[in-house]
Amino acid sequence: MAFIVQKFGGSSVADAERIKRVAGIIADTYIDNNDVVVVLSAQGDTTDDLIEKAAEINPRPSKREMDVLLSTGEQMSIALMAMALEKMGLPVVSLTGWQIGMQTNSEYGNARIKKVACDRIKKELDGRRIVIVAGFQGVNKYDDITTLGRGGSDTTAVAIAAAMNADLCQIYTDVEGVFTSDPRKVPNAKKLQEITYDEMLELASLGAQVLHNRSVEMAKRYGVNLEVLSSFVRKPGTKVKEETTVEQTKISGIAKDSNVARIALIGVKDEPGIAFKVFRVLAKLNINVDIILQSIGRGDTQDISFTVAKFDMEQAEKVLKEQQSVIGFKEISVTANVAKVSMVGAGMVNSSGIAVQMFEALFDAKININMISTSEIKVSVLVDEADADRAVAAIHAKFFES
Amino acid sequence: MAFIVQKFGGSSVADAERIKRVAGIIADTYIDNNDVVVVLSAQGDTTDDLIEKAAEINPRPSKREMDVLLSTGEQMSIALMAMALEKMGLPVVSLTGWQIGMQTNSEYGNARIKKVACDRIKKELDGRRIVIVAGFQGVNKYDDITTLGRGGSDTTAVAIAAAMNADLCQIYTDVEGVFTSDPRKVPNAKKLQEITYDEMLELASLGAQVLHNRSVEMAKRYGVNLEVLSSFVRKPGTKVKEETTVEQTKISGIAKDSNVARIALIGVKDEPGIAFKVFRVLAKLNINVDIILQSIGRGDTQDISFTVAKFDMEQAEKVLKEQQSVIGFKEISVTANVAKVSMVGAGMVNSSGIAVQMFEALFDAKININMISTSEIKVSVLVDEADADRAVAAIHAKFFES
Repeated sequence: MAFIVQKFGGSSVADAERIKRVAGIIADTYIDNNDVVVVLSAQGDTTDDLIEKAAEINPRPSKREMDVLLSTGEQMSIALMAMALEKMGLPVVSLTGWQIGMQTNSEYGNARIKKVACDRIKKELDGRRIVIVAGFQGVNKYDDITTLGRGGSDTTAVAIAAAMNADLCQIYTDVEGVFTSDPRKVPNAKKLQEITYDEMLELASLGAQVLHNRSVEMAKRYGVNLEVLSSFVRKPGTKVKEETTVEQTKISGIAKDSNVARIALIGVKDEPGIAFKVFRVLAKLNINVDIILQSIGRGDTQDISFTVAKFDMEQAEKVLKEQQSVIGFKEISVTANVAKVSMVGAGMVNSSGIAVQMFEALFDAKININMISTSEIKVSVLVDEADADRAVAAIHAKFFES
Repeated sequence: MAFIVQKFGGSSVADAERIKRVAGIIADTYIDNNDVVVVLSAQGDTTDDLIEKAAEINPRPSKREMDVLLSTGEQMSIALMAMALEKMGLPVVSLTGWQIGMQTNSEYGNARIKKVACDRIKKELDGRRIVIVAGFQGVNKYDDITTLGRGGSDTTAVAIAAAMNADLCQIYTDVEGVFTSDPRKVPNAKKLQEITYDEMLELASLGAQVLHNRSVEMAKRYGVNLEVLSSFVRKPGTKVKEETTVEQTKISGIAKDSNVARIALIGVKDEPGIAFKVFRVLAKLNINVDIILQSIGRGDTQDISFTVAKFDMEQAEKVLKEQQSVIGFKEISVTANVAKVSMVGAGMVNSSGIAVQMFEALFDAKININMISTSEIKVSVLVDEADADRAVAAIHAKFFES
């Protein structure tokens, strides 16, 4: 007997048929004599439909009211799932965010979890009921409804697993686990049996959209064992944990992130504090800078290149131009036609020459590298967007298909 | 400055355009320097859509889960209405049943209100905010969501008006008020300026579907001034109160109720306790009996006729046949092709001859009367369903069109 938290996303509960299939997975887990808490997202397009409804009435509604509206989506899901399990004759109870005491701060639309008061869930589990919980939602100290923002339901599941010391937190999605690369793009991509939190974090932030970073960070902090698996295929998925126990290749995955733009400031004065001046301007606007490349000075000037998220590009360009005389640069050059390709692996840290093999794969494929960034468990390169898929395939072939 | 509770039904908030129109009514009331609490139903077909969704998954879901599902409908309405008022630049806050402390018993699907904890609403009104409340829903002592059943949103509005001592509770519908008869059927029907609670109760229970009985009863008990008016036409409606202040005709309305079936037990033994035996059987199944007619005994047997709601007819027939030997009757005769036509008026009690004028009208129209029932403020007759509309028109003409 184990205590298992299972989370199912919007596509897993999109219609009556899928709800029944998921109910089957839940029922099997329960009948195997486990305590089961299930966290659900809103069905398929429900959230988009609600956003559209709101937009017809007010294009800029308050985030508080938006949260009142959006939280109905998950509430529908939990009631319907409970009904599906009732039909199978199983004891079940659905609970909303406020009912389980999911306490958050007051940042509507993007609230942070402060505490999960587990009494209600515990009481229901003690009565051997399956507990179906609405993900993505909570309440603040005023008893107002909040939502957790992107990846909110994953975060709900991990928070409950952490607070209640669950043995396992299963995140069911529409993919079978974490792959060495995007299986839709790289046909030879392989499913990983295990991966570390840190690797998962690097992959998530690099555009492998399996788990949201926030939930992985929380899982790492509280040592929650995660498993990513498919609600459509009954197979073991990928375990995410502190250290992998199976023998691993040095590299666990190759990811592409197209949500990247490059900004280059040309002819910057070569004097102390210049990087500080540039990035302070952007930090004020909450624009995150990723890869930074500062050229070696030529005479009295140098160039600074860096990447930002694509949707921040225009605003960054605007503010930098406004501050041109303060910062002191000759030209600004901006391009969105780039992508970041990254190789992640906890094994890299103890192994030299991995980056070299990556560059070799790109050279053999005649792909030009614009920028390079490395960390202990990651090597990222910026390439032209047109080359990105080929770059992923070439690196993947080098490491996983030989 | 007054404290006004306004309730808008599902058709008044069915789409974005109607929500905006209703927001206009609310805004005007607020800008006139009143405290405004608004109670909303679910939009148009939302409730039916949700019931259908549930049926696809489980044709017989628990009432608890059904309430979790259905209560999302009103929650959507309140968020959207709040957004419409925000767009007009007005301070507004939406609140669900549990947020306003709408405490009910645990009869899911048909819960009774036990208490309204007014603190939250009061706090918001003190901050000069418009308060938008989800009708139809509450919480029981376990913090589980309940719904109030038919007429639930009207009841929510009256309960809040009663608990908070509101000056007026306005029920906005798709008709302009209470009419002397159904204006869709009787072109000369006149809108009443005022009507008493008792008259309204008789009319409501007789099929004039303007206000649900439960809300009128509660209004009468707590002395809440009601007004029934249209959300589509800006005109004064009909006031419902303890005593009318304007000079009234003796009759306030003529109503038809087609949801009636007649059951006759023929050849019942003429002995004490027979009526008790018959109606105990029906009461056990929660079947309400309306008009009862017990014939004078002929020899050792008599006949008993009574009416029940149409949807109870089959069940009533079945159980009476099962108990035939216990009750002791020769035959049972059942017909659904009847309708009840009633005349209501608080003025009747002090005025003789009103019933006679009604019978005269029916005689002139050559309409046969099956059964008659009278109370202090009502005369009802059972006629063939095919004659019912003509009966209403004839009586209406007699009292209102001369």
